[in-house]
Amino acid sequence: MSQSSKLAVLLAAVHADVADSIGQGRVADYIPALANVDAKHFGLAIITCEGESAAIGDADMPFSIQSVSKVFTLTLVLERVGEKLWERIGREPSGSAFNSIVQLEQERGVPRNPFINAGALVTTDVLLAGRAPRIAIDEVVGFLRARTDDETIAIDQEVARSEAETGFRNRSLANFIRAFRNLAHPVEDVLEVYFQQCSIAMTCRQLARAGLYLANGGLDPVDGDRVARAETVRRINAVMLTCGHYDASGDFAYRVGLPGKSGVGGGILAVAPRKASIAVWAPGLNAAGNSLVGSLALERLAARTGWSVF
Amino acid sequence: MSQSSKLAVLLAAVHADVADSIGQGRVADYIPALANVDAKHFGLAIITCEGESAAIGDADMPFSIQSVSKVFTLTLVLERVGEKLWERIGREPSGSAFNSIVQLEQERGVPRNPFINAGALVTTDVLLAGRAPRIAIDEVVGFLRARTDDETIAIDQEVARSEAETGFRNRSLANFIRAFRNLAHPVEDVLEVYFQQCSIAMTCRQLARAGLYLANGGLDPVDGDRVARAETVRRINAVMLTCGHYDASGDFAYRVGLPGKSGVGGGILAVAPRKASIAVWAPGLNAAGNSLVGSLALERLAARTGWSVF
Amino acid sequence: MSQSSKLAVLLAAVHADVADSIGQGRVADYIPALANVDAKHFGLAIITCEGESAAIGDADMPFSIQSVSKVFTLTLVLERVGEKLWERIGREPSGSAFNSIVQLEQERGVPRNPFINAGALVTTDVLLAGRAPRIAIDEVVGFLRARTDDETIAIDQEVARSEAETGFRNRSLANFIRAFRNLAHPVEDVLEVYFQQCSIAMTCRQLARAGLYLANGGLDPVDGDRVARAETVRRINAVMLTCGHYDASGDFAYRVGLPGKSGVGGGILAVAPRKASIAVWAPGLNAAGNSLVGSLALERLAARTGWSVF
Amino acid sequence: MSQSSKLAVLLAAVHADVADSIGQGRVADYIPALANVDAKHFGLAIITCEGESAAIGDADMPFSIQSVSKVFTLTLVLERVGEKLWERIGREPSGSAFNSIVQLEQERGVPRNPFINAGALVTTDVLLAGRAPRIAIDEVVGFLRARTDDETIAIDQEVARSEAETGFRNRSLANFIRAFRNLAHPVEDVLEVYFQQCSIAMTCRQLARAGLYLANGGLDPVDGDRVARAETVRRINAVMLTCGHYDASGDFAYRVGLPGKSGVGGGILAVAPRKASIAVWAPGLNAAGNSLVGSLALERLAARTGWSVF
Repeated sequence: MSQSSKLAVLLAAVHADVADSIGQGRVADYIPALANVDAKHFGLAIITCEGESAAIGDADMPFSIQSVSKVFTLTLVLERVGEKLWERIGREPSGSAFNSIVQLEQERGVPRNPFINAGALVTTDVLLAGRAPRIAIDEVVGFLRARTDDETIAIDQEVARSEAETGFRNRSLANFIRAFRNLAHPVEDVLEVYFQQCSIAMTCRQLARAGLYLANGGLDPVDGDRVARAETVRRINAVMLTCGHYDASGDFAYRVGLPGKSGVGGGILAVAPRKASIAVWAPGLNAAGNSLVGSLALERLAARTGWSVF
Repeated sequence: MSQSSKLAVLLAAVHADVADSIGQGRVADYIPALANVDAKHFGLAIITCEGESAAIGDADMPFSIQSVSKVFTLTLVLERVGEKLWERIGREPSGSAFNSIVQLEQERGVPRNPFINAGALVTTDVLLAGRAPRIAIDEVVGFLRARTDDETIAIDQEVARSEAETGFRNRSLANFIRAFRNLAHPVEDVLEVYFQQCSIAMTCRQLARAGLYLANGGLDPVDGDRVARAETVRRINAVMLTCGHYDASGDFAYRVGLPGKSGVGGGILAVAPRKASIAVWAPGLNAAGNSLVGSLALERLAARTGWSVF
Repeated sequence: MSQSSKLAVLLAAVHADVADSIGQGRVADYIPALANVDAKHFGLAIITCEGESAAIGDADMPFSIQSVSKVFTLTLVLERVGEKLWERIGREPSGSAFNSIVQLEQERGVPRNPFINAGALVTTDVLLAGRAPRIAIDEVVGFLRARTDDETIAIDQEVARSEAETGFRNRSLANFIRAFRNLAHPVEDVLEVYFQQCSIAMTCRQLARAGLYLANGGLDPVDGDRVARAETVRRINAVMLTCGHYDASGDFAYRVGLPGKSGVGGGILAVAPRKASIAVWAPGLNAAGNSLVGSLALERLAARTGWSVF
Repeated sequence: MSQSSKLAVLLAAVHADVADSIGQGRVADYIPALANVDAKHFGLAIITCEGESAAIGDADMPFSIQSVSKVFTLTLVLERVGEKLWERIGREPSGSAFNSIVQLEQERGVPRNPFINAGALVTTDVLLAGRAPRIAIDEVVGFLRARTDDETIAIDQEVARSEAETGFRNRSLANFIRAFRNLAHPVEDVLEVYFQQCSIAMTCRQLARAGLYLANGGLDPVDGDRVARAETVRRINAVMLTCGHYDASGDFAYRVGLPGKSGVGGGILAVAPRKASIAVWAPGLNAAGNSLVGSLALERLAARTGWSVF
């Protein structure tokens, strides 16, 4: 059996493992564009460091990647400013959603890590250095198009508009950080870029492809691009493992054992270092705000492959 | 060059890497037995899944393993009660030392994870089920003697006495958990076992040897003992990576990239899955309470070997 | 109509005001001796600075005064050590039950005020200076006997025993404070005195009489004793008003407008400065742990008399 | 000696009491308009329920009343909507500056009391019901002009502009509350009114005069206006006493014993129920953000007059 066939068999088996659970969880409902998504969707795509790939279910249907975008912004920013980034953001798990704003106050506007909203706002602020908001957004989208060799990737402007209209909490966080002088650009500029990047729509197949450099030491094995230094990628993976699923990061590490980043749209990008990049989408969320069926599928996939880093 | 020689060369290189830093950090001073330890000690030992080993520096000098003992108690308890353990303890990073008692109150006596003191007290309570305190302590010590085939491993009774006399904070935690009915045994029994296990003295060589099953899927490759199920070990490693260094766990994952557990005595046990078990000892601690030079040595060792799980 | 008759009419009117509510609220259930008390009890007693008094309902039935005792211990201690007390305890509202242990950690073992449990433990520790626990307890009981000229006031030993057996939370607090070196005596000695003083049983009539010095500038107008300096009493009243009802102190000030201290046994001592001392007892508690009907009765009494300090 | 003369003697004595301390404390420095004020200013004015008045020092120099304005907005709003206000704001002390945003999150956008910034934003939102921002501002200024019969009272537009430009923290709070749907109007409208009312400039003499209704059961004894119901005023005084000085409210109650509200401009309005209204101004603040010398002056005035409510 070819490698591709083996991958297809693997995904079919994982799909069967979770079939009874598909539709479970609660779809994010804070904006209509997300609330109207059918909880029954399920997509799964994989691409290995050898360039073999497979996909199953709704793997070609675009969804809102939301916080998964934080991984790509972090890559851009870390490559640009390096370790200096950590003067403005931590890299520790936040303990809990609840604590984030307490910690932000106690730690004087320095967010716990780049994957909580507060931290992503600071990352976005770094990205804005020397460029207009429009350019910064184009840079993120351009990065994803280059990674996937797919010019169709775009921002869902209905989602972006809804995010901007209802984003009181992010607006609160941004002003709070600004009060501690840890944003260099106008709050509204930072928020604009932030809302736009969260509103990027991608398919599982695109997302897995885009994240492949993370599985391969920063070198994209398909197009040969050096996307990031090996050290940068190792560190992004570490932050994904410890902080990628909000206050259920420990549980994800325990059950799945792979670096991963979830988004409230129901997507998860998972990285099996030196093996493969995997993207899953199932819109129903668990209590911690991560894709319920998506987490389950990754748990099964890790069990079937033995790809846990532990 | 033989495998053993290569390991010896590796440790010598790591030793050289950190030589200028030896002595840095602040020795724990809350009890005299720890405060009197010379900050200039440095020991490092490694043993691979093939059974090859090497050691350097003060690798044969016993030190107080303190919280490193929590890894072994967790192993014993997880093997005994399995997933039921997680009804009484979480497996999420606590966010920070500060938050632990807030969280304990908010989360109604269920500690965040088994590696903060509150969690280890619950683990100890589980260990006590059906046995007297003395028997439970003997079980932990016996486990370590069996792992190392070394009957000399013992509890430092001076340390244990000091811990008991000054352990107001642990006594507070235990009573707090008991108030939420999450301890089944008398507070003083739980504390006795807890203080004794923290007071076990081991050398780096012994500690690396004892932890070898964690690097080898639960099977000790030297004596052929099945110490724990592969799944148990994978999960312990996951908890070590996300929670093993208090609120610097994210930083350790970022810089070292290996599951590890530190103790306030200056020891760290690190696990390179499918590769090796490593123990380091340097008594000076950093601000988060982890061995400063020990962390540095492991960072260098991971960089030189490429053993980061990411 | 005589002054006494007017007082009797007042109490009858207040009784009628709350008649329909009697029995409401939830009786404290953490120890059997309290859980078994009938929620339908209601007692009310008043004594003025002119020495006139009246009582109604179960005003002669002893109940467990619990935290009301903290007012008397504070009086003894403030008279003895004066302003130095505030180096070890604050005098600010704690914000909420929840926060007390957070604050205790953040503020390094210095409790927010003498009326939360943590603060009363420190007050008790001050009381213990130079005397055995037994003597300290006798001193509190003796103070109350002297104030009421009634040698029958005593500790309910069944309550005291239950408190000691189930007091894990107080034991936790005491050890926590001790860890910050803000207790000078053995934790068990402090707890013994604390549990005993909370277990004193008194009637409304006795309690109102005992607190009369607080309404009269520290001078007992009946027996002419100078119980405390005028300044001390003014300050105790201030702390009662801002901190006397846990995190419902603001609500009590808003609705009643008198300094008061509640206990979990359902009693409240209220002080109308330069007017009268009032004690009420109704065992059912509101969500904040204060007597539901007792608070209501005091609100009505303050409205009918215009005694609000505001 | 006439009443007025006696008052003048009183103020002179108080002035002498604090003379050596004048200039102490730290002037608020978050906006230039406040930072440039000379710390050596000291003004004190009093007006009794009989209409007698006196003033000393810089009592006729306008200063930024800042948070003292919250008392007047609360009066307007409480008279308009009554007890319903408390569905949207609490009336408990917040425990500490630090906790306010934690509490706001835990208590789901319901601020602890109307005198912390979060609470005043909600009060302002209530004031805005059915009127444009400009009208709401005019209403507050008009109220103060009517109370003082002085059309010169106005907003310092330089201060207002600075507040708006640097008010990231208030903007954060407002968005946070809005996220919990506890603001009905656009965040920017609420903030505009809030910043404007904080920027009102008044003299001590004007401020004491404006607050006189609070000392006289809601009836202004000079012009005979019924400003608020007696019950409303009693309750405002209660909230001032328990919450008027941030997390030093307990200390102010303890030392002064009068309801009071401080502002970061160094002003304090204090109320001696049934006696007098007092305003003091000294720009240097203590660690809790209240006028250092102003608090001291009020402590001396209360001691000299015996006006403590306790």
